[in-house]
Amino acid sequence: RINEQRLWDTLMEMGEIGGTEKGGCNRLAGTDLDKQARDLFVAWCEACGCTVDVDKIGNIFARRPGKYNDLPAVGTGSHLDTQPTGGKFDGVFGVLSGVEVLRTIHENNIETPTAMEFSVWTNEEGSRFQPAMQGSGTYVGRFDLETELNKTDVNGIRLGDELERIGYLGDMELGSRNMGAFFEAHIEQGPILEDEEKAIGIVRLGQGIRWYNVEVVGRPSHSGTTPMHLRKDAMLTAAAIVSEMNAIALRHENGLGTVGFMQVWPNSRNTIPGNVKFSADLRNPRPDVLLKMHEELIAYCEKIAEEHGLDVNLDPFWYFAPVEFNASDDVKAATEKLGYSHMDIYAGAGHDACYMADLVPTGMIFTPCLNGISHNEAEYSSPEECAAGANVLLHTMLEASER
Amino acid sequence: RINEQRLWDTLMEMGEIGGTEKGGCNRLAGTDLDKQARDLFVAWCEACGCTVDVDKIGNIFARRPGKYNDLPAVGTGSHLDTQPTGGKFDGVFGVLSGVEVLRTIHENNIETPTAMEFSVWTNEEGSRFQPAMQGSGTYVGRFDLETELNKTDVNGIRLGDELERIGYLGDMELGSRNMGAFFEAHIEQGPILEDEEKAIGIVRLGQGIRWYNVEVVGRPSHSGTTPMHLRKDAMLTAAAIVSEMNAIALRHENGLGTVGFMQVWPNSRNTIPGNVKFSADLRNPRPDVLLKMHEELIAYCEKIAEEHGLDVNLDPFWYFAPVEFNASDDVKAATEKLGYSHMDIYAGAGHDACYMADLVPTGMIFTPCLNGISHNEAEYSSPEECAAGANVLLHTMLEASER
Ligand SMILES: NC(=O)NCCC(=O)O
Ligand SMILES: NC(=O)NCCC(=O)O
Repeated sequence: RINEQRLWDTLMEMGEIGGTEKGGCNRLAGTDLDKQARDLFVAWCEACGCTVDVDKIGNIFARRPGKYNDLPAVGTGSHLDTQPTGGKFDGVFGVLSGVEVLRTIHENNIETPTAMEFSVWTNEEGSRFQPAMQGSGTYVGRFDLETELNKTDVNGIRLGDELERIGYLGDMELGSRNMGAFFEAHIEQGPILEDEEKAIGIVRLGQGIRWYNVEVVGRPSHSGTTPMHLRKDAMLTAAAIVSEMNAIALRHENGLGTVGFMQVWPNSRNTIPGNVKFSADLRNPRPDVLLKMHEELIAYCEKIAEEHGLDVNLDPFWYFAPVEFNASDDVKAATEKLGYSHMDIYAGAGHDACYMADLVPTGMIFTPCLNGISHNEAEYSSPEECAAGANVLLHTMLEASER
Repeated sequence: RINEQRLWDTLMEMGEIGGTEKGGCNRLAGTDLDKQARDLFVAWCEACGCTVDVDKIGNIFARRPGKYNDLPAVGTGSHLDTQPTGGKFDGVFGVLSGVEVLRTIHENNIETPTAMEFSVWTNEEGSRFQPAMQGSGTYVGRFDLETELNKTDVNGIRLGDELERIGYLGDMELGSRNMGAFFEAHIEQGPILEDEEKAIGIVRLGQGIRWYNVEVVGRPSHSGTTPMHLRKDAMLTAAAIVSEMNAIALRHENGLGTVGFMQVWPNSRNTIPGNVKFSADLRNPRPDVLLKMHEELIAYCEKIAEEHGLDVNLDPFWYFAPVEFNASDDVKAATEKLGYSHMDIYAGAGHDACYMADLVPTGMIFTPCLNGISHNEAEYSSPEECAAGANVLLHTMLEASER
């Protein structure tokens, strides 16, 4: 069993890096705070005898050797970057459960059959740079390395430059770790485990995600002198699309639709907006339903552009197809062995494990979080809930190493 | 008659300060560019023998003495600040028509019966600081000086600090000029004079304006894990209010409704917005209709807050009641004397003259602008159109000085 108090203290210590007044965390990818968090992880892993490598998109791999080091290692990992209004658990809980697993086997002088790998993936959140799961997606070959390093934030700063600046632009080749299985522990970020009073969620599926950049191009003009019928008001069109995103989600079972990001130009109260840029995020566990939602969004944007007499440019720059986790039964076996209550569940959010499933047998362990709230400073999981997840991770990894 | 080419050259020279690639102007109030524009105005006026004073809110008054300097002066003026996507004419044309009037009487060695006053008003646009017509409104006593100096821009920078920094926080008392009449020349900023093929608009009325700060307070949470029915999505509510602003305008004759400014928090694409702040601008020439529109907005915000289960805070921080210009007939007389085609018109935008009408007989002279476009870099008035307006200003002022 892992050390519940030590895991909790580790979570709280990491949470101070970028800690907010309301008890959350604001630690965007590629910032100085991201560097501090990464440095702390590296120090903790090295203290337990790991060797540490960094790949070309900044993913960190800490390796603890086992008995047969030519055999594929058993891996775990998640991310240390957060949302601007993030909590202390999203991603961090997975990374630090790994560190707790490492410490537990290290202090017990356990020689595992295979090596164990503990990883931190670059920009999982997709808040400062897009898309989400950028580090793991690039590692497994879904994205082109140069394209991703050239991605810029709203201020035009390149991801590649930021990684170099903080000392985490490595030279290890992508996809080059000798890993045989991958497990990620994560808070659920939704309300289901709490509602159902289950300690552990066996994640069977990661739902589908489609991300868009939308740009409405109207014409700036005076709010006091431009008659309503002569306007090309980019804000009005953007508002219609925001409402439609909601309507699309409601029309489909388990559909979700969100506009989280918007930039208005020139953003002056007596100038009718000439240009509005915003994000669109559609999700569904079923690929056919998600495709239907996608088509409805395209059709609506065409219709409203025509009606309002201006241009709507819809760039569907990221599609993440639903993924099934084929090592879920390993997670279930460990959970049952430890005697935790559990249920099958699907992941609403994207996770690094979703991309790792491209390469190796992969499983995810969910733990409950208070009121299902995440991407919010109030995000919370209790020490016991965290400990249960870390224990399942420990035993899942040990079992996988035995085989 | 004024010198058409000189007026045009002056407009083009001033337009270079903050000039944009597309031929417009971005010269926000209180910036270094505003300082450069003000300095140029002061230099031009001093070259024609004016003495210059600056009042406590940064308004500039240049005075050319006349024969009877104890008599109230005849004043003109407008503003040199622009929108972020402003043109070279809005406000600037009024100020530089004044400079052209000054140069014309100066080079002809005309001794006017009363002194003549040429003014520049602080932050007429209301883009960087709110409300609009801040300098003239404070001068006439509609706003409290300290409150206005303490107003901040989106970055938290105080107007008072900016005026001090650029050297235009004067010590002259507000409302202390000995003026007997005020005339402002301005481009129409709308399509009517062009449509009707008239050279001059005799402005009879400035329409009513109501400005609001709206804040929707929801709850940030995860776009992939928060079921639709558990959301408090501030963006969705904001979008509904944007659409309703449009609907309110369409329901009322001559109604206008605009949302030009919006800030989203935390503005991350996979976090449901917890907070959206935006502006609302309602206008109508009739105060009773504008009141109705105002009431409809309040009622809608209450209704949608209830329906969406979150908070909508509506701050109606500025009401500008429609104003009648009581010296319009002086403008009409001069226009007819000069033989220009003309029509009565009302002002869709607010103007400094609207507040000066509180203190003295006031009139406004409108000139056509291309396609009625303003608050857009494509804003344009021809040299002849500008010259006509400046000539009417010259003769209106000379006549007023005679009486
Ligand atoms: N775990 C998590 O919140 N990932 C962010 C990616 C997404 O699902 O939008
Ligand atoms: N003239 C002008 O554009 N004034 C700005 C104030 C407003 O009408 O919004």
